Order: sequence, then C-alpha cells, then structure tokens
Amino acid sequence: MRASRFLFATLRETPNDAEVISHQLMLRAGMIRKLASGLYTWLPMGVRVLNKVEAIVREEMDRAGSLQVLMPVTQPASLWEESGRYVQYGPELLRFKDRHTNDFVLGPTHEEVITDMARTELKSYKQLPANFYQVQTKFRDEIRPRFGVMRSREFIMKDAYSFHVDQESLQETYDVMYDAYCKIFTRLGLNFRPVQADTGSIGGSGSHEFHVLASSGEDDIAFSTDSDYAANVEMAEAVLVGERAAPAKALEIVETPNQKTIEDVSAFLKSEPAQSVKALLVQGVAEEGKAAPVIALFLRGDHELNEIKAEKHPLIAAPLTFATEEQLAEHGLTAGFCGPQGLVEKGIAVIVDRAASILSDFVAGANEADKHAVGVNWERDAQFTEVYDLRNVVEGDPSPDGKGTLQIKRGIEVGHIFQLGQKYSEALGCKVLGKDGKPLVVTMGCYGIGVTRVVASAIEQNFDEKGIIWPAAIAPFEVAIVPMNAHKSPRTLEAAEALYAELQAAGYDVILDDRDERPGVKFSDLEITGIPHRVVIGEKGLDAGTFEYKGRRDAESVNISKEELLAKIAK
Amino acid sequence: MRASRFLFATLRETPNDAEVISHQLMLRAGMIRKLASGLYTWLPMGVRVLNKVEAIVREEMDRAGSLQVLMPVTQPASLWEESGRYVQYGPELLRFKDRHTNDFVLGPTHEEVITDMARTELKSYKQLPANFYQVQTKFRDEIRPRFGVMRSREFIMKDAYSFHVDQESLQETYDVMYDAYCKIFTRLGLNFRPVQADTGSIGGSGSHEFHVLASSGEDDIAFSTDSDYAANVEMAEAVLVGERAAPAKALEIVETPNQKTIEDVSAFLKSEPAQSVKALLVQGVAEEGKAAPVIALFLRGDHELNEIKAEKHPLIAAPLTFATEEQLAEHGLTAGFCGPQGLVEKGIAVIVDRAASILSDFVAGANEADKHAVGVNWERDAQFTEVYDLRNVVEGDPSPDGKGTLQIKRGIEVGHIFQLGQKYSEALGCKVLGKDGKPLVVTMGCYGIGVTRVVASAIEQNFDEKGIIWPAAIAPFEVAIVPMNAHKSPRTLEAAEALYAELQAAGYDVILDDRDERPGVKFSDLEITGIPHRVVIGEKGLDAGTFEYKGRRDAESVNISKEELLAKIAK
Repeated sequence: MRASRFLFATLRETPNDAEVISHQLMLRAGMIRKLASGLYTWLPMGVRVLNKVEAIVREEMDRAGSLQVLMPVTQPASLWEESGRYVQYGPELLRFKDRHTNDFVLGPTHEEVITDMARTELKSYKQLPANFYQVQTKFRDEIRPRFGVMRSREFIMKDAYSFHVDQESLQETYDVMYDAYCKIFTRLGLNFRPVQADTGSIGGSGSHEFHVLASSGEDDIAFSTDSDYAANVEMAEAVLVGERAAPAKALEIVETPNQKTIEDVSAFLKSEPAQSVKALLVQGVAEEGKAAPVIALFLRGDHELNEIKAEKHPLIAAPLTFATEEQLAEHGLTAGFCGPQGLVEKGIAVIVDRAASILSDFVAGANEADKHAVGVNWERDAQFTEVYDLRNVVEGDPSPDGKGTLQIKRGIEVGHIFQLGQKYSEALGCKVLGKDGKPLVVTMGCYGIGVTRVVASAIEQNFDEKGIIWPAAIAPFEVAIVPMNAHKSPRTLEAAEALYAELQAAGYDVILDDRDERPGVKFSDLEITGIPHRVVIGEKGLDAGTFEYKGRRDAESVNISKEELLAKIAK
Repeated sequence: MRASRFLFATLRETPNDAEVISHQLMLRAGMIRKLASGLYTWLPMGVRVLNKVEAIVREEMDRAGSLQVLMPVTQPASLWEESGRYVQYGPELLRFKDRHTNDFVLGPTHEEVITDMARTELKSYKQLPANFYQVQTKFRDEIRPRFGVMRSREFIMKDAYSFHVDQESLQETYDVMYDAYCKIFTRLGLNFRPVQADTGSIGGSGSHEFHVLASSGEDDIAFSTDSDYAANVEMAEAVLVGERAAPAKALEIVETPNQKTIEDVSAFLKSEPAQSVKALLVQGVAEEGKAAPVIALFLRGDHELNEIKAEKHPLIAAPLTFATEEQLAEHGLTAGFCGPQGLVEKGIAVIVDRAASILSDFVAGANEADKHAVGVNWERDAQFTEVYDLRNVVEGDPSPDGKGTLQIKRGIEVGHIFQLGQKYSEALGCKVLGKDGKPLVVTMGCYGIGVTRVVASAIEQNFDEKGIIWPAAIAPFEVAIVPMNAHKSPRTLEAAEALYAELQAAGYDVILDDRDERPGVKFSDLEITGIPHRVVIGEKGLDAGTFEYKGRRDAESVNISKEELLAKIAK
C-alpha cells in the first residue's frame, strides 16, 4: 500500500469522550469513528486489523473441525418466545416490527436460530458431534455504551455451537475448542489466560472465559504463580491453611465510641483488621408461609464477601439481599456492632468463612452500641452453624490446585466457552434418533469470541505514550518504509520502491510512505498507528549502504545493513 | 474436507414454495434454509461459495485501489432526514426505535453514512480521489420477498463510494470500477454483460448495470451481435433505418366492426401490424393554471411503447399517465379507433415514433367507431408535431453503435455502478478545500455488487436436471474423491486418501466422500451440489492403474490415467 492512496485519519488530540486507552488510540490512529452512541464505522486502518483477527479466528475454527455458517442478523421473535428469552432478556434485546407488523429482534446471540437449524438438519446420532460457527454482526442495546468498540451496541462475534449425543461428547468438543481458543489468542500475540468462570443464570455445567490481561480490565483474575490454574475471582476457591490456636485471652467488653469501620476499630484497639471478624446480616431462604430468616455471615476483617459464593449456600437467598432494619431490631441486633456471641442461641444461623473460623482471641462487635468484644474465641464464646468459603481470594492465597500462590490481575473477557447442556435443545425440541432408535434431546455447547473487542483489548495490552504497539500478526501493516525528501531525491524514492517491492514479494504487508508530508508527521503517524517496523531511507544511508531501522518498541533507531534489516523484520 | 465431518443437507424433493431454479437448487443442495420470510441461514455448503465470491470481489476492489471500511448495519435516522430519504424511501426502509426511543433504520444502503464519514475525514482536494468499499449485511423490508436469496430481506452487498473534486475525476474512477467489475464477473466464471442503464429517480449522470444472462432474469438486455454495445431495453436507442416511400394508394375509410386490437384489424384487412400505426393518448405537461393537454403518440402496430423514453420528452408528463375518457370526449376522440388524421389541426400535439414516421400507405384508426383508414400517408393525410424515439428495441434492430444488429436476452442485475454527482454531498454538506483554497462540494460515485445474489445468479446460468453446475472459481469444492466400498476395501480408501493429500497439497479444494453411504447417494449429492470434478476409486481401476473421472457437465465417466486426471482438473 502506498500511503498517498491510503486514509491516514490520525488525530493529534485525544477526543474528550474516550475514557479508556484503546478507545482513545483507536480514534487517534484513525481506526474507527463514532456514528452514533455505541455505533462505529471502521476506517481502512481499523478494517485491516479486524480482517487479520477474523482470518486467524476462521483458520483455527476450520482446523478444529467447526463448519462455517451464516445466520441472519434479524431473527423472528417467535424463536425467542420458544426459548423463553423474549421476555427474560430485558431491554438489551432490541425488538422491532417489520412492515407486516411481525415481531423481530436484532440478534445479540444466535442460540435460538442455530437450535432451530439443528432441529431440522440433524436427524441421527450419526451426524453428531456437529459444530457450527459464524462471524457475524450482533446488536446489544446497551443502556450506556462506552469504551468504544469494547462495549458498543453493534459488534462482531465469532460464535460457535456444538451438538452432541451426550455429555462425554460435549466434553470432547469443549476440550478441542479450549485448545483452539488457546491457539487463536496465542497467534493473535496476546497475553491471555483461560479462566474458570461462573456459569451464571444461563445454566449449564462448565465454562471458561478467555481474558486478555490488562490493567483496564473489568474482571479480576486469580492465577497461580506455579501452575496453569486460573479463575475469575468470583469463582476462585479460598483454600483454608493452618488451624485454630487454643484461646489465650479472656473475653472482655471494651468501649469503642463512634468507631464503626473495621479500620477505625482496629486502630482504636491497636489491633489488626485480620485479627477481627465482621458481620454481614443477610436474608435467608424463607420456608413456605413464613418470613425470611436472618442469616449472619462472618468474615475476617480484612476480607471481602464473594456474593456469588454466598448465593450458592442453600440457606442464603439469591440474589443476595441484606437484612432490613426491622429484622435486626426484631432480633436485638445493633448494626455496626454485631458479633457472633449468642446468635445461634437466638436461632440465627451463623455461617463463618474458612479464614475467620481459625481465628483465636479475635475482636468482634459486642452486640451493643459503641462496644466491642476482644479476646473472643469460637466455641468458648461464640457458636457457628457452619464453616463455608464466603470470601474473595486475595494475592498470596494458596492456589486451589496446591501449586504456588495466587496472583490477581485485571482481565478483559475476549472469549467464552460454555457447556449449555440441554437448555435450548429442550426448549426448542432439538432431538435426533439415538443408536437405540429412540429420539434423544441433544446436548449443546457454545463458544464465543468478541472479534471487535479483541482489537481493543490488544491495544489495552500494547501501547505507550506514542500510541499503539501492534502484535505483528494483527498489525495493519508490518513494515513502513519512509524515503526522506522523496519529492526532491529520486535516489531515496527509488531505493524505497525497490525495498517495497522486495518485501512485498517476500510476503510482508508493507506501507510505503510516499506522502508529501514532513518526516515528523510521518513518524508520528506510523508510531500512533503502531506499525512494528520502520525503515527510513536517506541519502547518507544510501552512501553508506545502510538503512535506518527502528522497531516500534525501540527507543532509538539504528543504522544497519540490509541483511540485518531483513533479520529484524523476519523476527 | 472429509464428507463424514461435513453437513450434506441435500433434499430429494423440490420444496413447494421455491419458484425459481436457483432457489430450488440452493434448498436442495443444502446451501440455505429459510428462517423467516426473506431471511435465510447459509449452511456450510452455501457459506463456502459465498466466501469464494466475497474473496474475489475483495481482491479486485483492493487491486483497483478502493479502501475497505465497515459501516454499521444500524444507522441513525437523523442522517436519512438530512438526505431527505427518511420520508422518500418508503416502507422498504425498516425504521425502529432503540431503548432510549431514538430513531434508527436498518441500512438498505450506506450513502448517508459514508458521506457523513467523508465530510469529517476528507478535508482537502489533496485527499481526492478517494474510494471506499465494504462488504456488509443490508436489510430491505420487501413487501413480498421471493426467489430465495435473489430477493430476500437481508442480503450481503459489496458497496463502494468514491469522492472527487470534479466530474472528470469521477469519470476516471468510474472507468476503473467498470474494469474491476468486468474482472470480477469474469473471474467468477459468469456470462455477463455491462449494460447502459437508466439513472432513474436517484439522479446522476452515468450508470451501468452488470447483468448475468439467464432466462429467469427480470430485465431485458439488448446487445449487439458484432460489438460490445449492450443496454437495458428501457435505455437502448431504436435507430431509424430507411426512409419513407412516396404515397402509392389513396386514403380510404373502411368498416372494421368490433375489430379493436391491432391483430384483429390487421387480420380483418389482410394487412400486417407493421403496416399500421397505433395511437396512445397521454397527459401532456400542463401550463400553469391550465388543464393538462392530451398528447397523441403513434407507434408502428407491432412495436411497444417505452415509457421511460416517452417520459423524457419535454411535452409529456412524467410519470406517464393515459388521457381520461373525459379528455378524449372533449376532443371528439374515439378510443380504439384513433388515427393521426386531423389531430394537429385540433391542437393536439402528435409525436410519432421514428419507425412509424417512415410508413407509407398505412392503416390507422378513422377517428370514428368501427372504422379504419387505409392508404394513409404522413403529410398528405396526417400531420405530426415531432418524430421521436418512443419504442422498445426489438431483436434484429440495428445496434445504435452502427455495428451489427441487436439481440435481446433476459438478465439478472448483479452489479450497478452509478455517477451520483452531488446529490448526497450537497444534502449533507460534504465539502473539501479546493486548490484555490475555497470549499467545494465533492462529486460522488457509488458501486454495488449483490454478493448473495451473485451466488443465486450463477446457478440460474449453470444447472441441469441433476442440479447445480458451479463455475470452478466459486464451487464449494473443486474436486470430489469417492472411494468405492471404502468400509470394506482398505485399498480404495488408501488410494483415495493419497490422492486427497496430493490434490490438497497442490492447492485444490477437495472433498473426500468417506461417508458410510451407498455410491448412488454420494453421486447424487455431488451432482446436485455441483462439484466440478468427480473421481471414483474402485478395485478395478486400481488394478488397471486408472481413475474413473467425470466432469460435472460430462454425460459419462471415463477411465483415465493419473496424468490425464491431473490435466482434466488443472483445466
């Protein structure tokens, strides 16, 4: 590509409304432009990256045996009524009527459509397992679209769906997809982690998210220093280490006037938050015809409640809801000063986090305003109903697989594989004839990659103050050639043209910056757009037989021979 | 690809609701499935063809210097209000509201969006000419979607838009696009014609349609036997040949009771329709404050009025509207028996088609019920206001470029290139700074290819009673290998695997039919899906060192050596 025939739509200023770095840099590098809230036009610089990402995704999906299909963006509402999601999905599902006033939706996902296709095309167990994917535009009517293409309304997904006679077959394809995803994100040049994920309300029995690690990520990922273990923090098990020491102190009630937070109380008592417990009073599951009971959760003062874990406890109501003031008053509990002493005796279930359960001589509320108990000990002073994993893991916790300790980093979810089970096949009646001649409901898996989101996440992970730094595999151009004073010096232009032809013939994606612009403008454009290799061709270098080379991450350029240049680029 | 891992969704029966052959065969070959009226899911067999078409289109657009972009499917209504099309477009434009009740449309085309992009990104004449294309899903809410993907509601277009400082630059890019389109349709293996087209209500000054010739086409295309001349019949000029002979007969009024049609009158008078004129009485353009005048058009009895040509005449009102009975009565005209005699004298403008204007001694209505005039001659018996090209060309007419005569065939429009002029740039204020430092409104062109439609039109042009016959460039697979009794004979399977590996390594797109199915089922599947080359590997052939080869268009298979086989495939 000749730069004079390309659209460099770079911006010097950072647009005001772009909060995250990828959004800022995609605008500044001229990759995207906003059309309306959550809707972006991809300019030529952006499309080149998008095409490369899509090509890698398609190659690996093909290689993994998934068959490409293409389903419509517009979907009849009737299918969503069959699955029950027409109502469930909420306002992110864009609903509309066609000219005949039939109801349709703009597809945010395609489970219904693919299951409808499968129920007519798949007839026998002999056709299974089957795995279909597409790369298609999706629409999700976000209430507040933001972060550019990271959370836009229209976006491109690679979504795949597999069909099986049983769970064992699903697991096999799931594992194949897991490997394919690892290959895809590796080839894309991203630092990523596959992490165990919660299966959430969608149901199903197994799920991994693929996260690109970046400080701007919305999710916390816990992973082991010494093994492949990785999980979304909401899922990571907090393993118990150590055991409870015998009581050494007597229980004592102390005045803690106006000390409400754990930090305040600890400072006031010259203790550590980790040597105290904090109470969370929540709604329990109500027995039929009765009011919901209050459940008391106790965690170590320095730990955080993990709501998803708590909601999984059979006594605790989901979604997690705090007890009302009336409920507290009814049981004589004092908000901010609640301790475990005497609660079980009052008929309140006490669920203690594992780490809190091995404390001795700890600090707790005294169940009286402005008073705390010190030297509290479980069993001697306070009873509990059950010990349970209630908290978020923290850095330094042991890895649940017994290898190393946990680190926590922020991640951007770019892929998700999911064992759907029979949720959709049951709702839509997707059955095949089994080996025994009887119809069986198929078991399904689904596998998504946010193609447009991958582009943004690659930037979140690879940038500096000058702009984007592309992984070579998805750079809009791999090499930029800049002839100096090209409009005055036929020599530099000739040499640039020769190198351009040679590198193109060798299969590189090259841009020749033949624009009538100052070198500073060109260098700045090439830096912000993140081209991995820059070669400047000047009179001096031609005399010396060298090229001025600068890798995008290099601080300074170097003058090197053609052989060295080719070696740099080939890396 | 191994057939055992592919989805052969072939159907034995022709679905009832499929009218045209491409729709029938796309369903029967398992390429598409209907999701809802005008909405189709592309199955793996269809996507393979679609991808090949798209790849060729993209390669040639890239080569022609067009830059790929990607614009959203959903577009803000405000842009369509700016262009005036939000109201103009009618009910085919699907309008909807998002969750914030903002108005949007599902894009049937992207002139507004690209012009909006251009008005911010293009600032100087130095950036022009610029040419952008995308391959994107479009939506047109057809009142009666039909013919499968030929006239569906959701479809894929390659649409391109170019921007220029003047008409001359537009013409240059237009010519480049014309050539690119010829390359694309040639590479796709289609028998096509670029034809001059009417610019219609969209305005603009130059337009070509690209038609795939097929008997099921919706348009009539006239093209020369001896040159490249081709035009939509609605546009083709009817050239005058010959001149008027001197009158030989006297005018005579004859009784023609109840003879109303040209055919009836001619048979009754033992004359030819070509020796008579027929009248069409239409509304003229009204002068301000006056009623519309009646205009009389005369054509040869065997010719057809071309309404588009007529509407271009300055005296004739557009859209073409016939005169009312009141108007006829007012001028004493008798429907069915109207002749040119005395009309000009009555103040009625008489416009005569070129071919009718050189008749002598012809038959015409006598302006009295049940009577005709024979031996009528222009100027002696009847005056005319003007001679004009009013008729559709017919086969055998001379080509307007003076080379050869016209043939007429039916065509399917698969591409359209169009000089938009300043329609959108003016409406949306798309200006750049000119060489003189003053802002100038850019001049635009647009260039579309119906990617999904190309697939259907290729079938309309290439099929037989057994199914589709793909041009090699877009076949889902180029070669099929069928081992006989593969499940019993390891020899045939081994030989098939070896050939499969060899052909794949040579770059062919091969399917190995390793399914546990009878040969008849396989052959039928391979025929209906249109695979160009079939190689059967059996025990006998292995003994003799030959392969059983059959080209998709061949009546019989032949036993040939490997060398001959490779030569056949390489063709």
